[in-house]
Amino acid sequence: MSSGPHAPRDNDLRRVLISLWRRQILGILRAIGLSDDDAEVTTDVLAAADLMGIDSHGAALLPLYEGLVRDGATAARRSIKVEHDRAAVARIDGGGGFGHQPTVLAVEIAAERAERFGLAAVAIHRSSHYGAAGVYARRLAERGLIGLSTSSVWVRAIVPTGGLEAKLGTNPFAFAAPSASGRPFLLDMATSTAAIGKIKLAHRAGHAIPEGWALTREGAPERDPAAALRDTLLVPLGGHKGYGLAAMVEILSSALSGAALTPLRGAPGAVPHDVGHFVLAIDPGLLRGSRAAFEADLDRMTGGLRETTPADAARPVLVAGDPEHAREADRLAHGVPLPEAFAAQLRDVARRTGAAFLLQGEGAPI
Amino acid sequence: MSSGPHAPRDNDLRRVLISLWRRQILGILRAIGLSDDDAEVTTDVLAAADLMGIDSHGAALLPLYEGLVRDGATAARRSIKVEHDRAAVARIDGGGGFGHQPTVLAVEIAAERAERFGLAAVAIHRSSHYGAAGVYARRLAERGLIGLSTSSVWVRAIVPTGGLEAKLGTNPFAFAAPSASGRPFLLDMATSTAAIGKIKLAHRAGHAIPEGWALTREGAPERDPAAALRDTLLVPLGGHKGYGLAAMVEILSSALSGAALTPLRGAPGAVPHDVGHFVLAIDPGLLRGSRAAFEADLDRMTGGLRETTPADAARPVLVAGDPEHAREADRLAHGVPLPEAFAAQLRDVARRTGAAFLLQGEGAPI
Repeated sequence: MSSGPHAPRDNDLRRVLISLWRRQILGILRAIGLSDDDAEVTTDVLAAADLMGIDSHGAALLPLYEGLVRDGATAARRSIKVEHDRAAVARIDGGGGFGHQPTVLAVEIAAERAERFGLAAVAIHRSSHYGAAGVYARRLAERGLIGLSTSSVWVRAIVPTGGLEAKLGTNPFAFAAPSASGRPFLLDMATSTAAIGKIKLAHRAGHAIPEGWALTREGAPERDPAAALRDTLLVPLGGHKGYGLAAMVEILSSALSGAALTPLRGAPGAVPHDVGHFVLAIDPGLLRGSRAAFEADLDRMTGGLRETTPADAARPVLVAGDPEHAREADRLAHGVPLPEAFAAQLRDVARRTGAAFLLQGEGAPI
Repeated sequence: MSSGPHAPRDNDLRRVLISLWRRQILGILRAIGLSDDDAEVTTDVLAAADLMGIDSHGAALLPLYEGLVRDGATAARRSIKVEHDRAAVARIDGGGGFGHQPTVLAVEIAAERAERFGLAAVAIHRSSHYGAAGVYARRLAERGLIGLSTSSVWVRAIVPTGGLEAKLGTNPFAFAAPSASGRPFLLDMATSTAAIGKIKLAHRAGHAIPEGWALTREGAPERDPAAALRDTLLVPLGGHKGYGLAAMVEILSSALSGAALTPLRGAPGAVPHDVGHFVLAIDPGLLRGSRAAFEADLDRMTGGLRETTPADAARPVLVAGDPEHAREADRLAHGVPLPEAFAAQLRDVARRTGAAFLLQGEGAPI
């Protein structure tokens, strides 16, 4: 659940209809140099994150992506190869480009195989940033499957428990499951206690960060968000358990796929990044014997959780995926909120890459 | 990693060789009423936990198990059925008995299928307590496979974020992976911030518990271990992410297997428990194309983590599974440490059930 006390209040902001939002993303990705096919699929993944309110992992990634291609860390053009295609498992070579297109292919392969064998897994190597892990897991849930997706990250940010250096990325982990009501369960989390985006929000607001988010270079709790952003020494989720989860994500994403191992990476900036991803699909229809029975139980279980007596009567207890589901309905109907500062960033990316900027001011064409 | 600042110092305690330790467990399980086969397999699982130092989930469970059978919550005799056996997935009906024997069967089926299809999953319903999740995951790693195991728990202990009631069990999650060096990765964790055992240790020591472990009935941080043990309102690991992980474990263990859904359980004591478990195995040889390459990378990755500059030079950075691996070697050679208070508990269980007590005093027969 990516919402929180610092989430922007969507209703204060200008809204852009999703059709135009998609056209803007697509135009910039093409201008960055992606092939038409690749740009289409990558746009799907980024726009899906924006619709669900995972704002840090939608169009907000375009400035990063522009820089990765410019610096040679990620290839704009590449060819994707399916390797080791054996029964319920496959490995994909991402060709050094972004992770969205090979991972969408992995989702397709995993879904088709899960329906034949009961479950399936695909790992991807020679990849780069792949957007929000939750988009892939949720796609599987939309097809009636349990979905899991993980990725390694080339930036070392998480400090192993008892250590003074970052050795693992924020290593995201997403898990989704379908429900009869059409409101899927969706857990999409970094394995650090707090996302870097939350530290940036505290920095902008001029607030200290809580103990347990980041460390000083001496291993003490870091309360200053500016220092936390400079040193990037993040505490794993809840301590040693989160360190174990981050390492598990590294094993599934990188050791299993044959991608680069983050603890062994050299100085930041070494290229190409060779990031790894992992996708798993399970068909509850085959395992339990009935998709309908599983999906009905999913709703009964999440219903029981939502009925928990809340600490604050005005804030009902939620289930992972509820905020994303509600925001998606709102944004499909009313558009994606666009803070002016982000509009200015996108305008700059469009100018630098030669893409048309489509999102100026009120009453933008739809 | 189940070690911590409060772990007992093994060297202060009397040691019992594993062969005798196993005979004591086996005798009590038979006296409780388990069939010979069932008692043998259950002994294997409990003794494996004791060897790895997961002391709360080995022989220490025997008083609980005695009570579960006496209260009718768990059947001493049952029959296990494999249902829905389809390609890479299967479902097992545990027959209302303990979870060890059906889950060991699930490990066998998952391992054999993973070697054919690349991966496999088995879910178990109509079960009860299954010991330490890590034992099953590690067995798969010992066979060269990536292993994952989860279980629901009939006791509601974890409070959904923003709520005032416990709705989920401590829902354990274990993940293991094989390495070329023979030192497997092993993450074995409850999805609560702190295990109930750690609160008991604080209670015995007369210490307050840290904020973030448990809540008062009003939803404030609970610092009194006695109140925390009475109310069992545990904070999920790191907050809402841990709540999502606990719900994921419930989905895999109970919704997928068709077991009882913990958020919908009635008052404690309702029987039978109908607990669910889940086992997943992945063959890295099929997915990556080479078991040897995967296992070598596992060692390189964990080696990189162990080389992290430590905050305290006397305490090197560890990887999940390192403490268990070291304790296993020590305990295989020198025996399992036996605190006198625990020896007295076992003596009482033996007396009540009519089993021979084999562990009296120094110089017990081996």
